[in-house]
Amino acid sequence: MIAKSQKHWTGDVAQLLRVGEGFVLDDVDPSATPGYEENKAQAAEDLAAGALQLDEYQERLFAESRVGATRASVLLVLQAMDSAGKGGIVRHVVGSVDPQGVSITAFKKPTPEELEHDFLWRIAQRLPEPGVIGVFDRSHYEDVLIGRVRELASRDEIERRYGAINTFEKQVTDAGTRVVKVMLHISSDEQKARLGERLDRPDKHWKYNPGDVDERELWPAYMDAYQRVFDRTSTEHAPWHVVPANRKWYARLAVQHLLLEALEQIDPQWPAATFDVEAEKKRLAQT
Amino acid sequence: MIAKSQKHWTGDVAQLLRVGEGFVLDDVDPSATPGYEENKAQAAEDLAAGALQLDEYQERLFAESRVGATRASVLLVLQAMDSAGKGGIVRHVVGSVDPQGVSITAFKKPTPEELEHDFLWRIAQRLPEPGVIGVFDRSHYEDVLIGRVRELASRDEIERRYGAINTFEKQVTDAGTRVVKVMLHISSDEQKARLGERLDRPDKHWKYNPGDVDERELWPAYMDAYQRVFDRTSTEHAPWHVVPANRKWYARLAVQHLLLEALEQIDPQWPAATFDVEAEKKRLAQT
Repeated sequence: MIAKSQKHWTGDVAQLLRVGEGFVLDDVDPSATPGYEENKAQAAEDLAAGALQLDEYQERLFAESRVGATRASVLLVLQAMDSAGKGGIVRHVVGSVDPQGVSITAFKKPTPEELEHDFLWRIAQRLPEPGVIGVFDRSHYEDVLIGRVRELASRDEIERRYGAINTFEKQVTDAGTRVVKVMLHISSDEQKARLGERLDRPDKHWKYNPGDVDERELWPAYMDAYQRVFDRTSTEHAPWHVVPANRKWYARLAVQHLLLEALEQIDPQWPAATFDVEAEKKRLAQT
Repeated sequence: MIAKSQKHWTGDVAQLLRVGEGFVLDDVDPSATPGYEENKAQAAEDLAAGALQLDEYQERLFAESRVGATRASVLLVLQAMDSAGKGGIVRHVVGSVDPQGVSITAFKKPTPEELEHDFLWRIAQRLPEPGVIGVFDRSHYEDVLIGRVRELASRDEIERRYGAINTFEKQVTDAGTRVVKVMLHISSDEQKARLGERLDRPDKHWKYNPGDVDERELWPAYMDAYQRVFDRTSTEHAPWHVVPANRKWYARLAVQHLLLEALEQIDPQWPAATFDVEAEKKRLAQT
């Protein structure tokens, strides 16, 4: 489906980016712009048009949920290597929606309390309420990414987690949440350039962490861990999308598209009044 | 202080709107635009300029908090009669800030669990973390507003709460949070017009609640309860501001100003690097 407000796609972007059978991460060009042949300036215009649409869809969904007409919600799961642009997606795509209809969780290193529970315990607590767009900036997938690369859990436990994730996400989607899973894919060279810029600019120093360079040296191991995540957890009910992200403008437009499409599938409508409109007009007039 | 990015104020708006000794709510004209003599179009331009400034201040504060250089935060407390425009403030003023740096809580009727605790229990849990702008859409003041008007608690208990609020807010400000308390003040006629519009427009029906008309009939009792709130809880450390709100554009500009001023007083700066920048450049180059 082509989102109605985004007119310049030349292909079904969700289909183009979806991780299906036989998907190989290594074959994806992080600089490509699948399904979009326009330039950055046109993309900015399209993003602005899509922002209005996304905002209206979300408000309609929120309205429906408030009168009890729907339990639906959307959950955007964002995973990526450092500096791939998760923050920019939150700011420039999700940031166009009324903040009252958005719930953002940035998952950090688990606390001691969180570690005492199953890895999905803290995740379940942060699922979006009906009517809301939830965003996970990192997620339960860290437990099979850094968890695997840094050997924070045994191989058996990592294997168990893939299945546990699929079961969990099936329950979540069955309960009415559309789960949009996105990996922002940059090249190692692009990351090097972006980390370099953080070091060059004093107003970006706070975003730099010496640990980023250590993680960088594990790049091939991370790509391998992502490939396994895709092989094991790109399901019918909650497929993965790999979004080429060397061009930030493309990544933002593509993720906006995925959110628009999720909302179009829910197809929220302004709910009918749950009271007698004419009677209320009379009551109000008398005050 | 005049916020640097808002150039068209003719007076110190925070001072003009602040509830000081001898303040009488009944003397405030809800259609006035204290300290601002420009029109709606100019206000829209000024709001856009202020939005960029607010976003930068918040990001700097967030950056400082991330390296442990500050514990500061800002808390906007919004109180108003129905339809006065709280939602518009959240959307159009707070919505211009990176959503990762904002924490919004809409306080509803207390749950049974919340009622088992002191009225400040649920409030304390939602205070903003360092670096964040927190927003309370309704707040602990409901417990001395509807609490008083609807007699949900005894008079003695209501009296106790004013003091408890002042002690609580002193602790919060001592811990580094700037508390910006705002009552959006509309006239009864303006509310009638706005509720009427909600009844006229099918896409606004969901915002209408028949209970709004019942509350409306208690207007004088609410104004009296607000006056008592101002008399008892407009303190040096956490003063109230009454913002005339019949003109939405004025209310938004004024609240943005109050937030800008709070951040200017914190004066957040991009933090110095907590690592050796040149050494990191070399490490990165070698990867």
